[in-house]
Amino acid sequence: MIVHLKQGVGEKGLEKVLNKAEEIGICSSQLDISQGDTCVIGIKGDTSKVNEQSFENMSEVEKVIRITEKWKALSKKFHPEYSVIELPNGVKVGKDLVIIAGPCAVESYEQVLETAKIVKAAGANALRGGAYKPRTSRLDFQGLEEEGLNILARVKKETGLPIVTEIMDKEDIPLFEKYGVDIYQVGARNCQNFRLLKALSRIDKPVLLKRGSGITLNEYLNAADYIYSGNGKANPKVILCERGDKSYDPEHRNVLNINNIVYLKKECHLPVIADPSHAGGKRDMVISLAKASIAAGADGLIVEVHYDPDNALCDGAQSLTKPYFSRLVKDIDKIFRAR
Amino acid sequence: MIVHLKQGVGEKGLEKVLNKAEEIGICSSQLDISQGDTCVIGIKGDTSKVNEQSFENMSEVEKVIRITEKWKALSKKFHPEYSVIELPNGVKVGKDLVIIAGPCAVESYEQVLETAKIVKAAGANALRGGAYKPRTSRLDFQGLEEEGLNILARVKKETGLPIVTEIMDKEDIPLFEKYGVDIYQVGARNCQNFRLLKALSRIDKPVLLKRGSGITLNEYLNAADYIYSGNGKANPKVILCERGDKSYDPEHRNVLNINNIVYLKKECHLPVIADPSHAGGKRDMVISLAKASIAAGADGLIVEVHYDPDNALCDGAQSLTKPYFSRLVKDIDKIFRAR
Amino acid sequence: MIVHLKQGVGEKGLEKVLNKAEEIGICSSQLDISQGDTCVIGIKGDTSKVNEQSFENMSEVEKVIRITEKWKALSKKFHPEYSVIELPNGVKVGKDLVIIAGPCAVESYEQVLETAKIVKAAGANALRGGAYKPRTSRLDFQGLEEEGLNILARVKKETGLPIVTEIMDKEDIPLFEKYGVDIYQVGARNCQNFRLLKALSRIDKPVLLKRGSGITLNEYLNAADYIYSGNGKANPKVILCERGDKSYDPEHRNVLNINNIVYLKKECHLPVIADPSHAGGKRDMVISLAKASIAAGADGLIVEVHYDPDNALCDGAQSLTKPYFSRLVKDIDKIFRAR
Amino acid sequence: MIVHLKQGVGEKGLEKVLNKAEEIGICSSQLDISQGDTCVIGIKGDTSKVNEQSFENMSEVEKVIRITEKWKALSKKFHPEYSVIELPNGVKVGKDLVIIAGPCAVESYEQVLETAKIVKAAGANALRGGAYKPRTSRLDFQGLEEEGLNILARVKKETGLPIVTEIMDKEDIPLFEKYGVDIYQVGARNCQNFRLLKALSRIDKPVLLKRGSGITLNEYLNAADYIYSGNGKANPKVILCERGDKSYDPEHRNVLNINNIVYLKKECHLPVIADPSHAGGKRDMVISLAKASIAAGADGLIVEVHYDPDNALCDGAQSLTKPYFSRLVKDIDKIFRAR
Repeated sequence: MIVHLKQGVGEKGLEKVLNKAEEIGICSSQLDISQGDTCVIGIKGDTSKVNEQSFENMSEVEKVIRITEKWKALSKKFHPEYSVIELPNGVKVGKDLVIIAGPCAVESYEQVLETAKIVKAAGANALRGGAYKPRTSRLDFQGLEEEGLNILARVKKETGLPIVTEIMDKEDIPLFEKYGVDIYQVGARNCQNFRLLKALSRIDKPVLLKRGSGITLNEYLNAADYIYSGNGKANPKVILCERGDKSYDPEHRNVLNINNIVYLKKECHLPVIADPSHAGGKRDMVISLAKASIAAGADGLIVEVHYDPDNALCDGAQSLTKPYFSRLVKDIDKIFRAR
Repeated sequence: MIVHLKQGVGEKGLEKVLNKAEEIGICSSQLDISQGDTCVIGIKGDTSKVNEQSFENMSEVEKVIRITEKWKALSKKFHPEYSVIELPNGVKVGKDLVIIAGPCAVESYEQVLETAKIVKAAGANALRGGAYKPRTSRLDFQGLEEEGLNILARVKKETGLPIVTEIMDKEDIPLFEKYGVDIYQVGARNCQNFRLLKALSRIDKPVLLKRGSGITLNEYLNAADYIYSGNGKANPKVILCERGDKSYDPEHRNVLNINNIVYLKKECHLPVIADPSHAGGKRDMVISLAKASIAAGADGLIVEVHYDPDNALCDGAQSLTKPYFSRLVKDIDKIFRAR
Repeated sequence: MIVHLKQGVGEKGLEKVLNKAEEIGICSSQLDISQGDTCVIGIKGDTSKVNEQSFENMSEVEKVIRITEKWKALSKKFHPEYSVIELPNGVKVGKDLVIIAGPCAVESYEQVLETAKIVKAAGANALRGGAYKPRTSRLDFQGLEEEGLNILARVKKETGLPIVTEIMDKEDIPLFEKYGVDIYQVGARNCQNFRLLKALSRIDKPVLLKRGSGITLNEYLNAADYIYSGNGKANPKVILCERGDKSYDPEHRNVLNINNIVYLKKECHLPVIADPSHAGGKRDMVISLAKASIAAGADGLIVEVHYDPDNALCDGAQSLTKPYFSRLVKDIDKIFRAR
Repeated sequence: MIVHLKQGVGEKGLEKVLNKAEEIGICSSQLDISQGDTCVIGIKGDTSKVNEQSFENMSEVEKVIRITEKWKALSKKFHPEYSVIELPNGVKVGKDLVIIAGPCAVESYEQVLETAKIVKAAGANALRGGAYKPRTSRLDFQGLEEEGLNILARVKKETGLPIVTEIMDKEDIPLFEKYGVDIYQVGARNCQNFRLLKALSRIDKPVLLKRGSGITLNEYLNAADYIYSGNGKANPKVILCERGDKSYDPEHRNVLNINNIVYLKKECHLPVIADPSHAGGKRDMVISLAKASIAAGADGLIVEVHYDPDNALCDGAQSLTKPYFSRLVKDIDKIFRAR
């Protein structure tokens, strides 16, 4: 950690800052002081428990720079091996190319089953479908709730596909357990719902944590660490998911942050998948973004597919039909092998 | 609502869209069809329950434009009178200049009491302080929790100031009731935590809903409507709060969205306050942003003040000291009277 | 074009708008009027010369929506064939995989020659190098200017590689002609320097127009149309180039807008290349972004390479060394064939 | 300047960096070396001519942090007195409240004269009007060019108001001189057109430099320094102007960056005005943003006014009419005195 003092704070200012350092438990042997136009103090050793605000709050201090991030537990620097998470059907997330596909929202048993058959036949290795839907307006369809979980469980039994569905509140965990949800998805809007994250650090199921729109990598990885490192208990089965940011350009609903995928694969040992559906908005865009994500290093995709998108209750325009999805699977498979 | 068809869908495409309209309950007398290079269908009458996705999903449709927003209940067009929310001490939010001030986090009884005395003396009419703190990293101070609520209740008794504190999960509502919290604050990160919003539509206390960073006005007002209009029960005591967006400019932690304040006062009848502390980051900036917000039409402020910011556990650098806060109150009072 | 009137403007308001339409030369047979809660007027036929502001300015008008973009000449809807631009060495931009590589700035004959040999050997088919450098600060290296053009011309003679270099002002065109520049590059900061664009519509050389950071697709394509369609003379040899946007995330210098590449290839017939160097900032990032761009459909790349990046006068950290560049060429070639 | 080395580069890495420092002329007495987990080198003394890229390019270096900005000449730290620029009519920009008002584009003598009379009567102290218009599309009205300058000159003679108009290319400077333009405006799109800025450093007239959308404060102040400090000759009469950024929110055309106004007044000694018209887009918004800007510390405004906005050729919707403008002048005057 590096503490820059303000210009002109003098010896007295420096002393005050050094006293603060002592007060919060930093030994003087950890300190290096560089006096120039301004004074800079380097703090060596383990600083993960030093709160930078202890210094930032001081009127003598210009800026504090943290060298080692707080999400050290997720960092490839400290854990060079990539994490691999195995699903009930043997698919290894972080190693195999994983394709999670299915409808935006669970609407009926028939809809989920038909869609599941399509995606399984085309090569998907897990099934998505929302039972609880976070919707911008209270007037929009909010999901079938428990009935939706029940449908997913039945289709899982029928097809053998592990099921992925979104959790909006920790009080639903017992229901998710009852219906055998295989991957708990945390949506972009709940990326920093810390109470939910804390609760998910205490379960023994993989958690797919979407990056919230406008959330920095540092915020995102710290959010993931709420689950991964927990407090007391911990859940190392975290899957990261990039889904794009809003744009100043009215042409785009969202823009996939391709730099983030590269960064996450380089700096963090957790599996990283991409959601090209929310970032793309339209079918052709979805396929091209999927290919770009895999070329950039993503471990897989989560994609919206619907057997009859014209009548979908949610996000039909970005849902792939059977022929589109088959093309996507073939295309990304070629890219995966060529990358 | 206006439905633009794609170029070249022809009579057959139009017919398909008209069938869909009938299917979802729109009478043909509500429709106006304009045939040019492309075909445009206008839907008249109440469309607040028409889901635009019913049309957006269709391959024949280019774009759907909603004319009347879903948050109609909050709109000044339909409710031209401004809403006024009265606090226990008689302050009328939406009419009087309201100043909510206090520490970022509750740290101790002494800290809150001393800060409360300062802000009360200077002219604040409510006290803020976080007992539950949503923090980027799990390693940061998470708040005193119930003990923090207890401290706030004691200081309220001592000073008569109504208390404002953040709620992170609906399971805490009974505790908030027990300790007599006067205004439930929903933080920026929970702006679209719909389960929490739904629960808050069932209480009888004012809710201060901060706009999340990166949340559009349409998303924000729809979030507010989850509380205001509710489902079944409803809670009309909603206070809006603008707190800024992240910036591409490393000079700024956040940038206050001053256009939003103007828009909200013009389009919505709910009270609107500004949070210049999170948008400003530094003391001088905080005061200038406070003045600009009031000049732009805000009904008040929520400001971080600390009796000893050098030793604050959270956000000390942006917390005002006693002399800064006194200056702020005087300054904004002058602007309030001149605007 | 669609003109939405404001609520409550009545018959009188409608009449005023219709008079305006007549005044600016729209026949009544071009108009379709739809009366509902609000009134909507559709304008059929060719509206590319109708200025939407004629209506937007009126106090009766809520919003004007343009259906056909002004950059019609660039649109695949109207010109379904992709444009192909042939370079002097026979490379077909828009068809072949094109790789433009070389140093950020021309520093010396030796530097350019050595770098050119490296990139040619690895498979590049054009050489880049800045003689005129737009730099954030006046204190930074501003380029060798004419001497730089001279060096490029000599290296072109030596290696046979066509040369690509940036033009900052139209007064330099004669010098560019004298030294035989093959592709005139317009940098991101000059993307909307309309005087420069107009001048480049009058030359007979390909122009590589970078998208400016923060420029929308509509603005960008209109800028390209200043060159492509010109006024009087016109220059159809325009190459588009995506180079990313600034980010709110301090981890990224820029973020490549991968959605833009997909959009441009889908909607516009001009060749599109990507600049992963400015979007990436670091070598590993550059290679991964290059792969993603090609997977997304880009026709090629412009990449910074330096034979000795440690001593580069400009952007050394993002310049690829010989082994990195060789790997990049091999990698993108595989992706190009697999996509 | 502070140079952070990468982890694990060891003694050899440090030596390489120290050699580089020597090579570019830094004395060893200017260096402070702090060895911890990583090594940090502080460079003391004047570093304004040290190019951070000399270090950034090195594979041993993690990050370089500049303490003193390159735009030192504009900094209040080094020049604590505010600059004041006097106009021909005695108005002191940087001291008096300055209001520059007039039409977006010069359309006719009558239009400019009538508008000038309105704004003068209401209290404006300079007249704006565009003779050369940078327009998104080549099909939009591009301005009356020389004829526009002529009209402005005639209206200036008639009314005594100094004239402010936009320059798009340095070749127009002689014409601007001929027609006696009082303030040369550089539009947002040319904020980093460095050739133009260099040319304007050689004239003896005030230059109003708008911040480009998406341009950081550091980039903006460096752009201003191209004019202010120049190379050889210099032009200290620079007026800064904040005009907002694009937004991800479709409700806003632009969002005024109010934090920037506060920052610029605090860190830089040049006058700062605000352009609420482009940031606001609609009349009510324009007035509120104007008030907020003045409350935040701006020295004045540049505002679009039109005597007949319904028939404006450009930006009519955001142009104020006579009663709106009169209200604005009264309102901001009250705020100016109360701030």
